[in-house]
Amino acid sequence: MRKIILDLAVTLDGFIEGPNGEIDWCIMDDEMDFSKFLAAIDTILYGRISYDLWGQYQPDDSASPAMQDTFTAIHTKHKVVFSKTATVKDENVRVISTDIEKQVQSLKSQPGKDIWLYGGANLITTFIDLNLIDEYRLSVHPIVLGKGKPIFDNIDRRINLSLTQTRVFKSGVVQLCYQPQNNV
Amino acid sequence: MRKIILDLAVTLDGFIEGPNGEIDWCIMDDEMDFSKFLAAIDTILYGRISYDLWGQYQPDDSASPAMQDTFTAIHTKHKVVFSKTATVKDENVRVISTDIEKQVQSLKSQPGKDIWLYGGANLITTFIDLNLIDEYRLSVHPIVLGKGKPIFDNIDRRINLSLTQTRVFKSGVVQLCYQPQNNV
Repeated sequence: MRKIILDLAVTLDGFIEGPNGEIDWCIMDDEMDFSKFLAAIDTILYGRISYDLWGQYQPDDSASPAMQDTFTAIHTKHKVVFSKTATVKDENVRVISTDIEKQVQSLKSQPGKDIWLYGGANLITTFIDLNLIDEYRLSVHPIVLGKGKPIFDNIDRRINLSLTQTRVFKSGVVQLCYQPQNNV
Repeated sequence: MRKIILDLAVTLDGFIEGPNGEIDWCIMDDEMDFSKFLAAIDTILYGRISYDLWGQYQPDDSASPAMQDTFTAIHTKHKVVFSKTATVKDENVRVISTDIEKQVQSLKSQPGKDIWLYGGANLITTFIDLNLIDEYRLSVHPIVLGKGKPIFDNIDRRINLSLTQTRVFKSGVVQLCYQPQNNV
Protein backbone atom coordinates (compact mmCIF):
# COMPACT_ATOMS: atom_id res chain seq x y z
CA MET A 1 0.00 0.00 0.00
CA ARG A 2 1.29 3.46 -0.89
CA LYS A 3 1.90 5.75 2.07
CA ILE A 4 0.48 9.22 2.54
CA ILE A 5 3.23 11.45 3.86
CA LEU A 6 2.71 14.89 5.35
CA ASP A 7 6.10 16.49 4.55
CA LEU A 8 6.37 20.15 5.39
CA ALA A 9 8.79 22.83 6.48
CA VAL A 10 7.64 24.43 9.72
CA THR A 11 8.98 27.17 11.91
CA LEU A 12 9.76 26.45 15.56
CA ASP A 13 6.42 28.07 16.38
CA GLY A 14 4.56 25.75 14.02
CA PHE A 15 3.84 27.98 11.03
CA ILE A 16 4.03 26.78 7.43
CA GLU A 17 3.81 30.28 5.94
CA GLY A 18 3.98 33.83 7.19
CA PRO A 19 0.76 35.87 7.39
CA ASN A 20 1.16 36.90 3.74
CA GLY A 21 2.32 33.52 2.47
CA GLU A 22 6.00 34.19 3.13
CA ILE A 23 8.27 31.17 2.72
CA ASP A 24 11.54 33.10 2.46
CA TRP A 25 12.65 31.54 5.78
CA CYS A 26 12.53 28.08 4.21
CA ILE A 27 15.99 26.58 3.80
CA MET A 28 16.53 24.33 0.77
CA ASP A 29 20.09 23.14 1.08
CA ASP A 30 21.63 20.20 -0.75
CA GLU A 31 22.25 18.31 2.48
CA MET A 32 18.53 17.92 3.05
CA ASP A 33 18.23 16.05 -0.25
CA PHE A 34 14.63 17.00 -0.80
CA SER A 35 15.00 15.71 -4.36
CA LYS A 36 15.28 12.20 -2.90
CA PHE A 37 11.92 12.64 -1.20
CA LEU A 38 10.41 13.98 -4.41
CA ALA A 39 11.79 11.01 -6.35
CA ALA A 40 9.97 8.65 -3.97
CA ILE A 41 6.53 10.20 -4.53
CA ASP A 42 4.48 10.49 -7.70
CA THR A 43 1.34 12.24 -6.46
CA ILE A 44 0.73 15.46 -4.53
CA LEU A 45 -2.46 16.29 -2.61
CA TYR A 46 -3.54 19.93 -2.27
CA GLY A 47 -6.40 21.78 -0.67
CA ARG A 48 -8.01 24.24 -3.05
CA ILE A 49 -6.37 27.34 -1.59
CA SER A 50 -2.95 25.66 -1.49
CA TYR A 51 -3.36 24.55 -5.09
CA ASP A 52 -4.27 28.07 -6.19
CA LEU A 53 -1.19 29.42 -4.41
CA TRP A 54 1.34 26.66 -5.07
CA GLY A 55 -0.08 24.21 -7.58
CA GLN A 56 1.42 26.02 -10.55
CA TYR A 57 3.93 28.16 -8.66
CA GLN A 58 7.12 29.18 -10.41
CA PRO A 59 9.83 30.72 -8.20
CA ASP A 60 11.24 33.94 -9.60
CA ASP A 61 14.85 34.32 -10.63
CA SER A 62 15.91 35.42 -7.15
CA ALA A 63 15.04 31.99 -5.67
CA SER A 64 17.84 29.53 -5.00
CA PRO A 65 18.69 26.84 -7.61
CA ALA A 66 17.51 24.22 -5.09
CA MET A 67 14.12 25.96 -4.84
CA GLN A 68 13.90 26.22 -8.64
CA ASP A 69 14.71 22.52 -9.04
CA THR A 70 12.19 21.59 -6.37
CA PHE A 71 9.30 23.25 -8.17
CA THR A 72 10.40 21.85 -11.53
CA ALA A 73 10.24 18.36 -10.00
CA ILE A 74 6.91 19.10 -8.25
CA HIS A 75 5.30 20.00 -11.55
CA THR A 76 6.10 16.57 -13.03
CA LYS A 77 3.85 14.85 -10.42
CA HIS A 78 0.21 13.83 -10.55
CA LYS A 79 -1.82 16.31 -8.57
CA VAL A 80 -5.06 15.93 -6.70
CA VAL A 81 -7.05 18.96 -5.54
CA PHE A 82 -9.67 18.55 -2.81
CA SER A 83 -12.51 20.97 -3.35
CA LYS A 84 -16.28 20.88 -3.44
CA THR A 85 -16.41 23.45 -6.24
CA ALA A 86 -13.07 23.82 -8.02
CA THR A 87 -12.60 22.91 -11.65
CA VAL A 88 -9.06 22.61 -12.92
CA LYS A 89 -8.30 22.54 -16.63
CA ASP A 90 -5.13 20.51 -16.48
CA GLU A 91 -5.05 16.88 -17.51
CA ASN A 92 -2.46 16.20 -14.81
CA VAL A 93 -4.84 17.37 -12.07
CA ARG A 94 -7.74 15.42 -10.63
CA VAL A 95 -10.36 17.04 -8.40
CA ILE A 96 -11.89 15.08 -5.52
CA SER A 97 -15.04 16.72 -4.16
CA THR A 98 -16.89 13.94 -2.32
CA ASP A 99 -16.24 10.68 -0.46
CA ILE A 100 -12.72 11.75 0.49
CA GLU A 101 -11.97 8.73 2.66
CA LYS A 102 -13.11 6.20 0.07
CA GLN A 103 -11.40 7.92 -2.82
CA VAL A 104 -8.12 8.38 -0.96
CA GLN A 105 -8.13 4.73 0.17
CA SER A 106 -8.71 3.79 -3.47
CA LEU A 107 -5.80 6.02 -4.54
CA LYS A 108 -3.55 4.42 -1.91
CA SER A 109 -4.41 0.92 -3.11
CA GLN A 110 -3.42 1.68 -6.70
CA PRO A 111 0.11 0.83 -7.79
CA GLY A 112 2.58 3.70 -7.64
CA LYS A 113 4.94 5.61 -5.41
CA ASP A 114 4.13 7.28 -2.12
CA ILE A 115 1.81 10.28 -1.93
CA TRP A 116 2.70 13.72 -0.59
CA LEU A 117 0.07 15.53 1.44
CA TYR A 118 1.07 19.14 0.73
CA GLY A 119 -1.58 21.01 2.75
CA GLY A 120 -2.99 23.44 3.71
CA ALA A 121 -4.17 23.30 7.25
CA ASN A 122 -7.82 22.51 6.43
CA LEU A 123 -6.87 19.51 4.30
CA ILE A 124 -4.38 18.32 6.94
CA THR A 125 -7.14 18.51 9.55
CA THR A 126 -9.49 16.52 7.30
CA PHE A 127 -6.82 13.87 6.74
CA ILE A 128 -6.06 13.64 10.48
CA ASP A 129 -9.77 13.32 11.26
CA LEU A 130 -10.09 10.53 8.70
CA ASN A 131 -6.91 8.85 9.97
CA LEU A 132 -5.38 8.94 6.50
CA ILE A 133 -1.83 10.12 7.29
CA ASP A 134 0.79 7.34 7.44
CA GLU A 135 3.82 9.48 8.17
CA TYR A 136 4.54 12.97 9.46
CA ARG A 137 7.85 14.52 8.32
CA LEU A 138 8.30 18.00 9.73
CA SER A 139 11.45 19.96 8.96
CA VAL A 140 11.65 22.29 11.95
CA HIS A 141 13.39 25.51 10.92
CA PRO A 142 15.48 27.55 13.39
CA ILE A 143 13.18 30.54 13.46
CA VAL A 144 10.26 31.87 15.47
CA LEU A 145 8.03 33.61 12.92
CA GLY A 146 5.56 35.08 15.43
CA LYS A 147 2.60 35.08 13.10
CA GLY A 148 1.44 33.01 10.15
CA LYS A 149 -0.51 29.99 9.02
CA PRO A 150 -0.30 27.14 11.53
CA ILE A 151 0.38 23.61 10.30
CA PHE A 152 -2.22 22.17 12.67
CA ASP A 153 -5.49 23.99 13.02
CA ASN A 154 -8.80 23.06 14.58
CA ILE A 155 -7.75 19.52 15.52
CA ASP A 156 -10.36 18.02 17.83
CA ARG A 157 -8.44 15.14 19.37
CA ARG A 158 -4.99 14.13 20.50
CA ILE A 159 -2.77 12.31 18.02
CA ASN A 160 -0.19 10.14 19.73
CA LEU A 161 2.86 9.68 17.54
CA SER A 162 5.91 7.43 17.45
CA LEU A 163 9.20 9.06 16.50
CA THR A 164 10.74 7.04 13.67
CA GLN A 165 13.66 9.18 12.53
CA THR A 166 15.49 12.42 13.32
CA ARG A 167 17.84 14.18 10.93
CA VAL A 168 19.90 17.20 11.96
CA PHE A 169 21.27 19.47 9.25
CA LYS A 170 24.14 21.96 9.34
CA SER A 171 21.66 24.69 8.50
CA GLY A 172 19.99 24.14 11.88
CA VAL A 173 16.97 22.44 10.37
CA VAL A 174 15.88 19.32 12.29
CA GLN A 175 13.68 16.85 10.44
CA LEU A 176 11.35 14.91 12.76
CA CYS A 177 9.59 11.84 11.34
CA TYR A 178 6.65 10.19 13.09
CA GLN A 179 4.00 7.55 12.52
CA PRO A 180 0.61 7.79 14.20
CA GLN A 181 0.55 5.18 16.96
CA ASN A 182 -2.51 3.41 15.59
CA ASN A 183 -0.59 2.80 12.34
CA VAL A 184 2.59 1.45 13.95
CA MET B 1 27.11 36.28 33.29
CA ARG B 2 24.33 33.87 34.23
CA LYS B 3 22.21 32.68 31.35
CA ILE B 4 18.43 32.88 31.11
CA ILE B 5 17.18 29.58 29.72
CA LEU B 6 13.68 28.98 28.41
CA ASP B 7 13.33 25.23 29.06
CA LEU B 8 9.93 23.77 28.36
CA ALA B 9 8.15 20.64 27.23
CA VAL B 10 6.07 21.33 24.12
CA THR B 11 3.80 19.24 21.98
CA LEU B 12 4.54 18.90 18.27
CA ASP B 13 1.87 21.54 17.70
CA GLY B 14 3.57 23.97 20.07
CA PHE B 15 1.41 23.79 23.17
CA ILE B 16 2.80 23.86 26.71
CA GLU B 17 -0.49 22.83 28.34
CA GLY B 18 -3.87 21.54 27.23
CA PRO B 19 -6.86 23.89 27.30
CA ASN B 20 -7.48 23.02 30.97
CA GLY B 21 -3.83 23.02 32.03
CA GLU B 22 -3.29 19.34 31.17
CA ILE B 23 0.35 18.20 31.35
CA ASP B 24 -0.38 14.46 31.51
CA TRP B 25 1.26 14.09 28.05
CA CYS B 26 4.56 15.31 29.50
CA ILE B 27 7.15 12.53 29.66
CA MET B 28 9.63 12.64 32.56
CA ASP B 29 11.92 9.69 32.01
CA ASP B 30 15.30 9.17 33.61
CA GLU B 31 17.10 9.34 30.28
CA MET B 32 16.19 13.01 29.91
CA ASP B 33 18.05 13.76 33.13
CA PHE B 34 16.00 16.82 33.93
CA SER B 35 17.53 16.76 37.40
CA LYS B 36 20.85 17.72 35.79
CA PHE B 37 19.21 20.80 34.32
CA LEU B 38 17.63 21.64 37.66
CA ALA B 39 21.00 21.26 39.39
CA ALA B 40 22.47 23.86 37.03
CA ILE B 41 19.92 26.56 37.85
CA ASP B 42 19.14 28.26 41.14
CA THR B 43 16.38 30.67 40.16
CA ILE B 44 13.03 30.26 38.40
CA LEU B 45 11.09 33.05 36.69
CA TYR B 46 7.28 32.87 36.56
CA GLY B 47 4.51 35.01 35.19
CA ARG B 48 1.78 35.60 37.75
CA ILE B 49 -0.67 33.07 36.32
CA SER B 50 2.04 30.42 35.97
CA TYR B 51 3.16 31.04 39.53
CA ASP B 52 -0.40 30.67 40.81
CA LEU B 53 -0.75 27.39 38.91
CA TRP B 54 2.72 25.91 39.33
CA GLY B 55 4.71 27.98 41.82
CA GLN B 56 3.67 25.84 44.78
CA TYR B 57 2.37 22.82 42.83
CA GLN B 58 2.57 19.40 44.42
CA PRO B 59 1.90 16.44 42.12
CA ASP B 60 -0.58 13.97 43.57
CA ASP B 61 0.33 10.40 44.40
CA SER B 62 -0.55 9.18 40.91
CA ALA B 63 2.29 11.21 39.36
CA SER B 64 5.51 9.43 38.43
CA PRO B 65 8.45 9.44 40.87
CA ALA B 66 10.41 11.52 38.33
CA MET B 67 7.62 14.14 38.35
CA GLN B 68 7.52 14.10 42.17
CA ASP B 69 11.30 14.55 42.36
CA THR B 70 11.18 17.35 39.81
CA PHE B 71 8.75 19.43 41.84
CA THR B 72 10.64 18.73 45.07
CA ALA B 73 13.77 20.12 43.41
CA ILE B 74 11.88 23.05 41.89
CA HIS B 75 10.67 24.15 45.31
CA THR B 76 14.26 24.49 46.59
CA LYS B 77 14.98 27.28 44.07
CA HIS B 78 14.74 31.04 44.36
CA LYS B 79 11.62 32.20 42.59
CA VAL B 80 10.79 35.46 40.90
CA VAL B 81 7.22 36.36 39.97
CA PHE B 82 6.58 39.08 37.39
CA SER B 83 3.40 40.93 38.17
CA LYS B 84 2.23 44.52 38.48
CA THR B 85 -0.07 43.68 41.38
CA ALA B 86 0.80 40.33 42.98
CA THR B 87 2.02 40.05 46.54
CA VAL B 88 3.55 36.76 47.61
CA LYS B 89 4.08 35.92 51.26
CA ASP B 90 7.04 33.62 50.84
CA GLU B 91 10.54 34.69 51.71
CA ASN B 92 11.87 32.58 48.85
CA VAL B 93 9.83 34.56 46.31
CA ARG B 94 10.62 37.99 44.95
CA VAL B 95 8.09 40.01 42.95
CA ILE B 96 9.27 42.23 40.08
CA SER B 97 6.61 44.69 38.96
CA THR B 98 8.51 47.45 37.11
CA ASP B 99 11.69 47.99 35.10
CA ILE B 100 11.79 44.36 34.01
CA GLU B 101 14.75 44.75 31.66
CA LYS B 102 16.90 46.57 34.21
CA GLN B 103 16.01 44.28 37.08
CA VAL B 104 16.58 41.11 35.05
CA GLN B 105 19.93 42.37 33.79
CA SER B 106 20.84 43.09 37.40
CA LEU B 107 19.76 39.57 38.40
CA LYS B 108 21.88 38.09 35.59
CA SER B 109 24.94 40.00 36.69
CA GLN B 110 24.76 38.70 40.25
CA PRO B 111 26.80 35.60 41.11
CA GLY B 112 24.91 32.33 40.91
CA LYS B 113 23.78 29.55 38.63
CA ASP B 114 21.74 29.89 35.46
CA ILE B 115 18.13 31.07 35.55
CA TRP B 116 15.11 29.14 34.29
CA LEU B 117 12.42 31.09 32.48
CA TYR B 118 9.40 28.92 33.25
CA GLY B 119 6.66 30.89 31.47
CA GLY B 120 3.84 31.40 30.69
CA ALA B 121 3.37 32.72 27.22
CA ASN B 122 2.96 36.38 28.22
CA LEU B 123 6.21 36.41 30.17
CA ILE B 124 8.00 34.57 27.35
CA THR B 125 6.76 37.21 24.91
CA THR B 126 7.98 39.99 27.21
CA PHE B 127 11.40 38.35 27.51
CA ILE B 128 11.64 37.85 23.74
CA ASP B 129 10.67 41.48 23.14
CA LEU B 130 13.33 42.63 25.61
CA ASN B 131 15.90 40.25 24.10
CA LEU B 132 16.52 38.64 27.49
CA ILE B 133 16.55 34.93 26.54
CA ASP B 134 20.02 33.41 26.12
CA GLU B 135 18.97 29.86 25.31
CA TYR B 136 15.85 28.06 24.12
CA ARG B 137 15.55 24.38 25.14
CA LEU B 138 12.34 22.87 23.84
CA SER B 139 11.58 19.21 24.50
CA VAL B 140 9.28 18.36 21.61
CA HIS B 141 6.90 15.60 22.66
CA PRO B 142 5.52 13.06 20.16
CA ILE B 143 1.93 14.24 20.33
CA VAL B 144 -0.40 16.62 18.55
CA LEU B 145 -2.62 18.04 21.27
CA GLY B 146 -4.99 19.95 18.99
CA LYS B 147 -5.81 22.67 21.46
CA GLY B 148 -4.08 24.30 24.38
CA LYS B 149 -1.83 27.13 25.50
CA PRO B 150 0.79 27.99 22.87
CA ILE B 151 4.39 28.47 23.93
CA PHE B 152 4.77 31.49 21.67
CA ASP B 153 1.95 33.98 21.56
CA ASN B 154 1.64 37.46 20.17
CA ILE B 155 5.27 37.70 19.04
CA ASP B 156 5.68 40.73 16.80
CA ARG B 157 8.96 39.96 15.05
CA ARG B 158 10.96 37.10 13.69
CA ILE B 159 13.55 35.52 15.97
CA ASN B 160 16.36 33.89 14.03
CA LEU B 161 17.94 31.08 16.03
CA SER B 162 21.07 28.96 15.85
CA LEU B 163 20.67 25.28 16.68
CA THR B 164 23.26 24.40 19.33
CA GLN B 165 22.27 20.88 20.39
CA THR B 166 19.79 18.11 19.62
CA ARG B 167 19.03 15.19 21.95
CA VAL B 168 16.82 12.29 20.92
CA PHE B 169 15.28 10.12 23.65
CA LYS B 170 13.88 6.60 23.49
CA SER B 171 10.53 7.98 24.58
CA GLY B 172 10.31 9.88 21.28
CA VAL B 173 10.99 13.23 22.88
CA VAL B 174 13.47 15.38 20.91
CA GLN B 175 15.16 18.21 22.77
CA LEU B 176 16.08 21.14 20.52
CA CYS B 177 18.47 23.77 21.91
CA TYR B 178 18.95 27.15 20.28
CA GLN B 179 20.61 30.50 20.89
CA PRO B 180 19.16 33.68 19.41
CA GLN B 181 21.44 34.72 16.56
CA ASN B 182 22.17 38.14 18.02
CA ASN B 183 23.55 36.42 21.14
CA VAL B 184 25.81 33.95 19.31
